[in-house]
Formats: sequence, C-alpha cells, structure tokens
Amino acid sequence: MITLARRVADVRGSAIRDLLTLTARPEVISLAGGLPAADLLPRERIAAAAARALTEPGAVQYAETAGIAPLRETVAAHESARIGRPVRPTDVVVTSGSQQALDLLARALLDPGAAVVVEDPAYVGALQVFQAAGAALTGVPIDADGMRVDVLAERLAAGLRPRLVHTVSSFHNPRGVTLAPDRRRALAGLADRYGFLVVEDDPYGLLAFDGAPARPVAAHSDRVLRLGSASKIVAPALRVGWLTGPPVVVGAVERLKQGTDLCGSSLTQAIAAELLADTGWLDAHLTRTRAVTAARARAFTAAVADRLPAVTCTTPTGGMFCWLEFPQGGGVRDTTELLSRALAAGVAFVPGSAFAVHADQTRAARCCYASVDEATLAEAVARLASCVS
Amino acid sequence: MITLARRVADVRGSAIRDLLTLTARPEVISLAGGLPAADLLPRERIAAAAARALTEPGAVQYAETAGIAPLRETVAAHESARIGRPVRPTDVVVTSGSQQALDLLARALLDPGAAVVVEDPAYVGALQVFQAAGAALTGVPIDADGMRVDVLAERLAAGLRPRLVHTVSSFHNPRGVTLAPDRRRALAGLADRYGFLVVEDDPYGLLAFDGAPARPVAAHSDRVLRLGSASKIVAPALRVGWLTGPPVVVGAVERLKQGTDLCGSSLTQAIAAELLADTGWLDAHLTRTRAVTAARARAFTAAVADRLPAVTCTTPTGGMFCWLEFPQGGGVRDTTELLSRALAAGVAFVPGSAFAVHADQTRAARCCYASVDEATLAEAVARLASCVS
Repeated sequence: MITLARRVADVRGSAIRDLLTLTARPEVISLAGGLPAADLLPRERIAAAAARALTEPGAVQYAETAGIAPLRETVAAHESARIGRPVRPTDVVVTSGSQQALDLLARALLDPGAAVVVEDPAYVGALQVFQAAGAALTGVPIDADGMRVDVLAERLAAGLRPRLVHTVSSFHNPRGVTLAPDRRRALAGLADRYGFLVVEDDPYGLLAFDGAPARPVAAHSDRVLRLGSASKIVAPALRVGWLTGPPVVVGAVERLKQGTDLCGSSLTQAIAAELLADTGWLDAHLTRTRAVTAARARAFTAAVADRLPAVTCTTPTGGMFCWLEFPQGGGVRDTTELLSRALAAGVAFVPGSAFAVHADQTRAARCCYASVDEATLAEAVARLASCVS
Repeated sequence: MITLARRVADVRGSAIRDLLTLTARPEVISLAGGLPAADLLPRERIAAAAARALTEPGAVQYAETAGIAPLRETVAAHESARIGRPVRPTDVVVTSGSQQALDLLARALLDPGAAVVVEDPAYVGALQVFQAAGAALTGVPIDADGMRVDVLAERLAAGLRPRLVHTVSSFHNPRGVTLAPDRRRALAGLADRYGFLVVEDDPYGLLAFDGAPARPVAAHSDRVLRLGSASKIVAPALRVGWLTGPPVVVGAVERLKQGTDLCGSSLTQAIAAELLADTGWLDAHLTRTRAVTAARARAFTAAVADRLPAVTCTTPTGGMFCWLEFPQGGGVRDTTELLSRALAAGVAFVPGSAFAVHADQTRAARCCYASVDEATLAEAVARLASCVS
C-alpha cells in the first residue's frame, strides 16, 4: 500500500493534455492543443544559435537559479519598453515556461484557503496551480472586452479580499478576447486600493495581428507580476518563460526555484537570449507569424460563419484561440458529448467545461486556429458541422 | 505591503548557491560547487546531437509531460539493467534534473508533518524540498559504509514511522561514501517490513572509479523510487533527470508536473536520448571521465595528507566529493569562520554545517575535487593549509 499526500488526490490532470493523447491520431485534425504552428517555428535560426552557444563552456554547465545574465538583461529591456518604466535585470526570474512562474508564485504567495480571483472561463494551468495550493477560487466573468472588472469591483466592495487576481490580459486562453484599456487601468486601481497583487499572464501579447501590443496592466501599478514566455514567439521547447514584479516576490520565487529544479537550462537560455536580443530578426519573425496566423483566424471564422451560422464565435485580433458557443435550444447541449462524435468525424477541440469555474460552459468549445493551414481549418469546420444536427 | 505565504519565510536559500556567487571571483579556486568538470563535458558531441535533433519539427514543440518516448525507452533500458528486473518506459518520468523529481515526490507523498528520514549530513537540495513540504525530519548518521541502517532499524523499532527514507546511496553528497551492499539489502528489507518508501537518489552511481556501479537498493525491493540524472554523466545544462518506481507514484508525479511546468524541453531531451542510447560513445566518455576524476581525487587526498595531516579525509572511490574533518581541539573550531579566511587566501569550500540535520558538523567541510586540475587542487590545499594555524 502506498499513500499519496491528501491534496494530490484533488489534483485533476489537465483534460486538455489527456485529450492531446487521444487526438495524436494522424487522421484527426486537432484544434485542441494550444500549440504554436510547427511550420512557423524558427528551427534553423534556433539551430544556428545552439551551435553558437555551444562554442562557450558555460552553455553546458549549471546556470544561475534566476537565469543567465544576458537573458535577464534582454527581458528587462523588453519589459521596460512594454510597461514604460525601468525594470532591472535583478527584477527578472527566468522560469521553465511561464507555467513554472505561476506555480512558484502560488507557492510563494498563497497559504491554504487564500482567496484568489480567476477569470471564468479560466486558463487551465492557472486553475491547476491555484487548486494545488489550496486556494479558494472566485471566478469573474469575461465578455468581449475581457474580465468584467466592474463585477470584480462589486465583489471587492462586498468584502472579497483576494491575495491574487489572475488575468490573461491579451488574447485570452480560452476566450480569445483582450482586456480593454479602461479596464486595465481600473484593475490596476483596484489592486492599489485593496492591496491585492495582479498576475498578468501575457504569453500572447506580442501576437497582436496589427502588430501593436496593448499597454500592460503593469503600466498602471507596481502591484503587478508580469509573466512572459518565449514559447509562443520563439519555441516551446526552449522552456523559457519569465516573471517580473516587486522585488520581494521575485526574491521569494528565486529562493523557491532553487529547491524546485536548481536552475533552468543554460543552453536553451543562451538560445533565447540571442534570438530575443536580435530585434531585427525578431520583428521580421513576428511579422510573418502574425500575418500567417491572422489569415488562419479569418479562414476559421469564415468557415464557422458559413457552416455553423447559429454558433457565436469570437473575432480574434491576435493570439491563437477562438471560443465557440452553440445556441441554447439548438442541437448541441453539451460539447463534451459533441467531442466523441467530432473525434469519430476526425476533428478535435476542447469542451468549454474544461475551463469552467462557476459559470456553465457546457455549450462552449475552445478551438486553436494557429496550428494548421487554411484549407485544413476549412475541412475541420466542415467535419465539425457534419456532427451538429 | 506584500505578504508572502507563511511557509516561504522558513525556506532557507541554499548556502551553497549563495556561496557560488561569492566564489565566482576568478582569483578564488572553488572547491565549493558541485559542478562537473567543464573540460570533461562533451560540448562538441552535444552540438552534433543538437544539430541532428533540430532537423525534426518535434524538437522545438511542446513535449509529453512525462518526457519524449525515445528518452523514456533509453532510461527504462538502463534502469532495467541496473536493478535486474524490467522497468517499462511508462514507469519513467523525465524531470528537470533529479532535483525536480525530489520536489515533485515531496509534493506527491508528504502531508505537512509527515515523518521523513534523511542522512546526517544530508544533501542540501533534499533538506530544502522536505522542509518546504513541512516534513518532520529525522537524521540518521553516516559512516564510511554509508547510512547507519542499524541506527535506522533501532529508530523504527522504537516507533518511528517515516513515509520516506532518502539516501544518496553511491558517492554521497556531501560525505563521499557509498552504502555497503549488506546495508542496501537491509534498508530494502526495512522498507518492505515497515511500509515506507526509499528515495534512492543516484546521480553519481555511474562515476565509480573502477567502472563497476553498485547494485541499487531498488534491486532488493519494489518500494524504491530511483532518481537518476544526465547532469553528471552528460551535462547539467540539459536539465534532464528521471524518476522510476511504483506506477501509483510515477503517475502522481506526472500529474503534478503538468501544473508545475507543463513539460520539459523536447530539444534537450532529444540530445540526452541520443547520447544515452549511444552506449559505445557513453562508455568511452565515462571511462575518460572516471580516469581523470580519479586522478584528481588522488591528487587532492595526497595534498591533504601532506599539508593537513591532522585532518580526516574520505578516500573517494567515485563521484565528486571529499569530506574533511578538522581535529577536535585543533586550530579550526568552525569551518564557517575558516571560510572567510580561506576566501581571503583564494580558496572556497562548503562548511559542514550547511548539510547538518542534528549532528554537529562545524569542524567539517565539503570539497569538490572534480572541477579543477591536479596542479590547481594542490594549490587549493596549500592555500587552505595556510589559513589553518
């Protein structure tokens, strides 16, 4: 008999990652994963950077726990430009993707029972981390302009005292929407007034189709922890994400990271440092990624409008995701049931309930349009439509 | 005001990693780090493997949470040969160094207050992880044959009921000694009898100077979680470690890893998979590493015998570490005090108290002889001797 820790029994595996196993069959077109498009990942540029990095002995040795200096400097420069005030390299901790930053933040800031606000529907990785930390979650609804900060303000006025408010501020996963500028200011104002911290989880911010990233929540308050990632702008395999924010939190995260994995990879960090610092290359790479992804988003939404006219679908302005809502009283009552039929027809998505906090998301579905080409997207929507009576 | 989680206040940063910052000055010969020798790391072979891996699109994409299939297969084959019974690839989780395996194990298995047995002195990374999990630690002393399993048996007979017993079974960090064969059998027997799990932390096992790794504790019981790592046999920068053991634990660790960092790097895992599967290359590489490291160990212990004759010093038979004990009543009462003088003289080590659980280690020091050449080791010992009156 082997007994697991009590809390582990409650940790739900991500339904999405379990799905990825099911959808790995080649005959299934998967809109389920949150994967960047394989054809847009700069494999040759990464190979060149790897070869260059490996001329230095440091690239194969242990790294500093907080990340190698050139990467922290580059991230600090990027973040300073984004938020409009200086971020020092010592205010940056490099993590194993931004998911590790979320996990370490939860461990650094949350005692069991601590109140945490998430968006509803929410990023699954945030739900996992906050549930594992024993947090008491409150979901705040999202509309076309992102988190309903007015609803949050009501809850705060009624006595809610969260330690953290988590938001995917740009091109929300799973909802696809972006927090409006006035709501960003309002959220920052609430953080200052009520003393909570905002976790601004921003892996998609640079993927605005018009090339103009939104001004971060962190531009309006210093009570914001910003999470960034190279996964969507260079490649997931680097496992390079980062956290910037108040030094007391950054210091605690760095201390916790020591025990968690000692350090990240000096090799993949050196690759990320070179590519993120090469602004000429990065701009050209992002311009191409945005153009291709925008065309895919248009193809996908056009196919949905054509084949599934009763379905409400976000109009993406960046990022990777569309959120579909099947009409009440229509043929689709539960997208989890729809998924079995869809898999049989050769298409996969993630049912809305995977992201649900309080609200009913059983008629919703998350589709990632970024990973496949336009013709395949059209075929995927046709297959999906064939399952909807 | 920002409030950290209660338990974070207790997390001590690793004194060793803090030291590494101090000892980064070029004029200091550092015996403090636990770094493999930079001149022995196979940088060119890694570069070739990286170039090859990057011809495949999968090498830049997200990996499976438990690790890429070829690496899990290679590790399973290695481990099957080591423990003498089949380990399936599904019984392997690849982690970010074996440190992440330790952290995830602690989260998977320990409720706050759970009893955990560690060696005294102990590996600092284990102390950090178990303390962060709120475990109640019991230290069992070590002698020249490793953990005093007879002392553990007494404690168990007296009522101690640990959930885990942690051991660095071969070439102990920091003590340098190896658990004797009869003690391995006895420890496994105690695990079966009292129902605890053994964490057999074995990053150095393949670094036996005579090329003959000891039979693992896991050969004698299936209540053993084995931790392995590519850090000391290929390179730390891959951040590739692994855990094998009972499926219920492996499954829980995999589930927890999802929320912790989603997955490891498919690039560095592909490099590790190629190099660990290339047994011709690996054997030659390990043969050279063992020969060079053994020569360094001899040079170091000879210099200690010559310059510090009153000091007791382990005779290494593998691994990276020597444990020095200054004589009672001699000039050195506290190696933490000695360290300031040593740094001024241009040599660094880790004071014994960094590894202490219950026992007094104030006259001890850990020295890593693996990272520098023989002449530099002799100079390091001469500098150390100059500080000891």
